[in-house]
Amino acid sequence: MKLAILGFGTVGGGTADMLVKNAELLAARAGEPIEIKYIVDIREFPDSPFADKIIKDFSVVESDKEISLVIEVIGGAKIAYDFTRRALLAGKSVVTSNKELVATHGAELLAIAKEKGCFYLFEAAVGGGIPVLSPLTNELGHNEISEISGILNGTTNYILTRMFSSGASFEAALAEAQAKGYAESDPTADVEGHDAARKIAILGALASGKLFSADHILTEGIRGIRAEDVAAAAKIGYSIKLLGRYLATRSGDLFLLVAPFMIPAESPLSGISDVYNGVLVRGNFVDDVMFYGRGAGAAPTASAVVADVDKIARGVAQRPLFANAESDALTDISFFSARRYVVVEGVDANAAQIIFGETEPLSSEENAFLTVEMSEDSYLTRVKRLEACGGSVVSHIRLYR
Amino acid sequence: MKLAILGFGTVGGGTADMLVKNAELLAARAGEPIEIKYIVDIREFPDSPFADKIIKDFSVVESDKEISLVIEVIGGAKIAYDFTRRALLAGKSVVTSNKELVATHGAELLAIAKEKGCFYLFEAAVGGGIPVLSPLTNELGHNEISEISGILNGTTNYILTRMFSSGASFEAALAEAQAKGYAESDPTADVEGHDAARKIAILGALASGKLFSADHILTEGIRGIRAEDVAAAAKIGYSIKLLGRYLATRSGDLFLLVAPFMIPAESPLSGISDVYNGVLVRGNFVDDVMFYGRGAGAAPTASAVVADVDKIARGVAQRPLFANAESDALTDISFFSARRYVVVEGVDANAAQIIFGETEPLSSEENAFLTVEMSEDSYLTRVKRLEACGGSVVSHIRLYR
Repeated sequence: MKLAILGFGTVGGGTADMLVKNAELLAARAGEPIEIKYIVDIREFPDSPFADKIIKDFSVVESDKEISLVIEVIGGAKIAYDFTRRALLAGKSVVTSNKELVATHGAELLAIAKEKGCFYLFEAAVGGGIPVLSPLTNELGHNEISEISGILNGTTNYILTRMFSSGASFEAALAEAQAKGYAESDPTADVEGHDAARKIAILGALASGKLFSADHILTEGIRGIRAEDVAAAAKIGYSIKLLGRYLATRSGDLFLLVAPFMIPAESPLSGISDVYNGVLVRGNFVDDVMFYGRGAGAAPTASAVVADVDKIARGVAQRPLFANAESDALTDISFFSARRYVVVEGVDANAAQIIFGETEPLSSEENAFLTVEMSEDSYLTRVKRLEACGGSVVSHIRLYR
Repeated sequence: MKLAILGFGTVGGGTADMLVKNAELLAARAGEPIEIKYIVDIREFPDSPFADKIIKDFSVVESDKEISLVIEVIGGAKIAYDFTRRALLAGKSVVTSNKELVATHGAELLAIAKEKGCFYLFEAAVGGGIPVLSPLTNELGHNEISEISGILNGTTNYILTRMFSSGASFEAALAEAQAKGYAESDPTADVEGHDAARKIAILGALASGKLFSADHILTEGIRGIRAEDVAAAAKIGYSIKLLGRYLATRSGDLFLLVAPFMIPAESPLSGISDVYNGVLVRGNFVDDVMFYGRGAGAAPTASAVVADVDKIARGVAQRPLFANAESDALTDISFFSARRYVVVEGVDANAAQIIFGETEPLSSEENAFLTVEMSEDSYLTRVKRLEACGGSVVSHIRLYR
């Protein structure tokens, strides 16, 4: 079996490395060697051990009948989309870690793969090396899935972990993450939650068979989290994690959102620190199951990419039971209900209690409190009332349960 | 698709329940309804909603051509072995949660299934509802697996959790577990580690392709753990968990053992409490991955049993890449190396330090200390020397790392 890797960045390099280092094991499993024939990248890599395989022109791959599989690890939804489409149309299976492309064009690309009798697989798009998508579909999909809640972004989890362990501000923790290579120089996609939104859109599509546009998912990042919020959470035994959440209620409502949540110590999500990811799935028979591991990095992501390659090579790949429609499902969360940590200013504690209902005061230095459970709608109504009284919200974090 | 359930106990009841409650979802996935035709049990269940399906004679199932799948949830390796063999020989696939049977006769039964073109699947045998065996084989098996460490037994984990949270003695915590239905009246298989040994034997067979007899795996239970040990562990931030461990060294040694380990708080295994199970897998590219969830109970175990049924019904079942030999692989752990928590009596601290090498004292009330890393062999040599000096070991727990 001969394949091409599109993109020789971090994940592409890790993937090539695994295909070589674990070649014997892979060949034994597949019954034949798996060989990298091309690596497509516009850059030069004269010193790479793979230098002789690097080409610039994708059409060489596209027209090479020997290539039955293409690994797309370019990222983004432009060139990657074009190359993936063309590879699939040429009957070549495509394996990817590209969550943006899967979240935006997954349904279309899966339809092309099906029509052409090849595969479009993307285990690496969510949770890095952690097997999540396949277990969710294959070992848990016969449960009614009522919840998927995931720490889906390692960068933000590292920042939040540092804020808890050192009391650092968001800015200081971000700078540290950047210095360690855990955050990009433009960290927007991570810290604003867009990366997590793409991932929960994919998980939601697998769990529900409906398609969600990441752009329409309520997405709140972690920029607004203050050292005071961290201290308040720690004081009552909570951690703060950026979660991507998919919730299916008994009455048929689907809620998707990405936001920081305060998580009680009893939750298995609470202990997931640093750059690790964890995805909790709740099914009507299995109850809570959680998958944990490295959600990013060259080697773990390569593991997930090559897992899909290995399945295709062994002849056991399955078509992901992804969204069966191209249309965007509603992701209105007006009735999503949660307790909330709220910090207000401009009104006294008494007024805050009247506006937010029964509250549990948290701090002597700020007007910080926990509310009872209330819907998004109800919360927003109360915020308007607060503002009408001359007050404003300083900080607001939902409680996980 | 018509099936029979053998054994109408806890898991059998849960399985029947799931096949009925999630029937619509299962039928949609399989493209046809999945129907329970028989439930085989020697007992009477006049008030069961399944009363009309209950029969006593397995040969009715064996000779019924309509039955293509049999769910064996009898347990044990006697009648279950006979029925499973006969079902497979009749060309019917068998799905089971029976770890004892898989651990003792798995290789033989898989060979029969292969010969007859049917399946023998046992996702439910390890980790209850948690998808472990399939991800280990399918999404991680292309990694070189150097370690599998699992909290594989919910009963002992509940007991240990209670000992930590309440300071209870082993006996008191066991009595509580029995009162809550988490431990059987004869708790031997759980507390002595035999249940965990069967499970790690199965995991080891899947990871290595070698066969391990649970009887030949060093198996130490948790009966000897004292409240003093729990207090000492808690003081230095460790928990104690009964682990089943599979370790493959770079030099090709395989170590399997079941024993209580002291686990540092940084390990994701540390936070797994109560009746939950967790299985950590370390691969050369994926690094550490952990699977977490309910390791026992009717509904979660049913989820894993029905997951295998669902795969067969969807036509996507795969033969487990289990041990390819019937012969028992060596499980000598003489050179397995670990730091140790040791409590001695009959010699003073100075003598203990001379015998055990550099130690880290832990308690002012007992002669308790942590040793440096040493092999099993080296430890046993030191214990002999201790005994020659008139001393003896009061307690001994390996440290996890």
